[in-house]
Amino acid sequence: MKKVPYERLVRLTEGILTKGFGYNASEAAVTAEVLAEADARGIPSHGVARLAFYRNNLNGGFAKPGAEPEVVRRTPCSLVVDGRGGVGCYVADWSVSQTVELAETTGTAFCAVRNSNHYGIAGWWAERIARHDMIGLAFTNTDPAGVPTHGRRRLLGTNPIAVAIPEADGRIFLLDMATTTVAHGKIELYDRRQKTMPSGWVVDEHGREASDATAFEKLFHSMAFGGHLYLGGEGEECGGHKGFGLALMVELLCSGLSMGLSSMKVYQPGGEGGITHFFGAMKLDLFGPAAELKRHIGEILGDVRRSEKIEGRDRIYIHGEKEAEARERSMREGVELDQATVDFLSALSREFQVNEEGLL
Amino acid sequence: MKKVPYERLVRLTEGILTKGFGYNASEAAVTAEVLAEADARGIPSHGVARLAFYRNNLNGGFAKPGAEPEVVRRTPCSLVVDGRGGVGCYVADWSVSQTVELAETTGTAFCAVRNSNHYGIAGWWAERIARHDMIGLAFTNTDPAGVPTHGRRRLLGTNPIAVAIPEADGRIFLLDMATTTVAHGKIELYDRRQKTMPSGWVVDEHGREASDATAFEKLFHSMAFGGHLYLGGEGEECGGHKGFGLALMVELLCSGLSMGLSSMKVYQPGGEGGITHFFGAMKLDLFGPAAELKRHIGEILGDVRRSEKIEGRDRIYIHGEKEAEARERSMREGVELDQATVDFLSALSREFQVNEEGLL
Repeated sequence: MKKVPYERLVRLTEGILTKGFGYNASEAAVTAEVLAEADARGIPSHGVARLAFYRNNLNGGFAKPGAEPEVVRRTPCSLVVDGRGGVGCYVADWSVSQTVELAETTGTAFCAVRNSNHYGIAGWWAERIARHDMIGLAFTNTDPAGVPTHGRRRLLGTNPIAVAIPEADGRIFLLDMATTTVAHGKIELYDRRQKTMPSGWVVDEHGREASDATAFEKLFHSMAFGGHLYLGGEGEECGGHKGFGLALMVELLCSGLSMGLSSMKVYQPGGEGGITHFFGAMKLDLFGPAAELKRHIGEILGDVRRSEKIEGRDRIYIHGEKEAEARERSMREGVELDQATVDFLSALSREFQVNEEGLL
Repeated sequence: MKKVPYERLVRLTEGILTKGFGYNASEAAVTAEVLAEADARGIPSHGVARLAFYRNNLNGGFAKPGAEPEVVRRTPCSLVVDGRGGVGCYVADWSVSQTVELAETTGTAFCAVRNSNHYGIAGWWAERIARHDMIGLAFTNTDPAGVPTHGRRRLLGTNPIAVAIPEADGRIFLLDMATTTVAHGKIELYDRRQKTMPSGWVVDEHGREASDATAFEKLFHSMAFGGHLYLGGEGEECGGHKGFGLALMVELLCSGLSMGLSSMKVYQPGGEGGITHFFGAMKLDLFGPAAELKRHIGEILGDVRRSEKIEGRDRIYIHGEKEAEARERSMREGVELDQATVDFLSALSREFQVNEEGLL
């Protein structure tokens, strides 16, 4: 473990993206910020370690630095954006800015984006919208990760849902969840540590529950069958069909409304990256004076926070609190990176001669 | 089991509501339709058997027939409605009509409703919006049913999410899910049949997983502790915090934006019913020609339908299909009611002298 000052981590990542990946300054700035933010918030699965994935996308011809997104359809409350294969975080940043601008005028606005790429943590975008005293939505599809209820082929992505709702005192309720039971990074961890996975996480190529993380990892990277289960697990007994339904909803809002590629068709060799997003912004003051609403929302959440805990727990977390507190700690003490990530960044720095300033 | 023609079931229910419950004709018509629809779709937990609950609400002074809802705030794309304690289905019908009307003009509209009552199946309202070539949203809070992650007091309701998205050929993707793992009716069934509940459904008053349905039913009706788990089950290992987060999102959109009562404060003796809803309508053609979008959505869903199944299953269901097919069967062959429901309806008919026509 190593703690790196946030600003340094951002600058180093920017350097790698510009010097090594050919990103322009705007693309590098927003991408570095989103990746470093994930690490700062304690979500390393979406942090700077993702540079490996971004590099693969670059080499596969999926992410095209310099490509400028384009609005292909516009109404006073909606946009359809063609990302033209550009850098995901840049396309998202561009789209979210325009969505917020529209919503400032109209009260509410939605934006469906096709032909984009991975945009980092969904919650970042939802939260950015919420900072404008709006309810923020950010959904995205991803490469295929999960199997449908009663199916065995990976079809839909981890298809995360992010919803941000402003609360009193500048706080934000931030639900940012993959619709699969767990993120893939968790399975990689179980593989490395040779731990047995609990029921409800994944199934094998026959659609049967699997618990061996190493065997699953092998399968996941070699065939199209077997995959993550959605929230609620296998079958319908504990609601797996609901989690799958949420993933399908995300898919239809993203690839459906943008007329883009569905999860099952993204990142095909020779094809487009083709990731699709959906953003929403809704001004709080549509429903009343924003300050009053935020106070009321704060009271509801306060009742939840104060509620009786089970033995051994002294806190009920509201969504986003853990990450906000991790972020504060990171800003104060530096962003914690594991040794593998530090080594990986160092190697990239050497390769692209970025590390002149001795950032790491 | 008895099969009753749909129209007869609606007329009988209407008769009970007008003669017995004092509903006016409009309130009775919409309520009878929503309840009979639930039975017709194979969701008896929300069908005419709910008349018992509606009667309790009436007797408790929570539902006030004749009360007219009122728009307390209006913008070109939003409404806040005060239901004034009226009949839930009537308030919902009134609010949804106005929301659709606004969206027809503006492209998208949202409506937060406070001080309402139980409005039947959430999916009914989302689907009604989708019939206008719009994406339909319908959320509601309910009386307290579930415990937060690491908590043991029942705070939030089953807080269902309903999202309807039009597909090709007049079909509608209809996700209608309680954010709890299971509906309470399922636990009542396990109690009656003396079956052991699987892990992930409920916890006892200490917040520990419980499997004895009879003991749980007793607890549920006698104390404020112990309750349903949200989708994903206990703790965070299988994502229970995500299900809880979805319930909290529903709560903030419904009671938060309407400035109404949160789940934990509804149906207090001497107080208001106070149920809150949130509706959304978004025209498909904001994003492109509706027919083209529906075809594209149909193609994505077609890929899912055709995907490889696990052994012993010959179908992957899209959300809403089971219910749509059950409805077709019910319209053809009559609505299936269990004997307890038939007896209950007969008793109400006799009590209020509704059954002159020999409907049952």
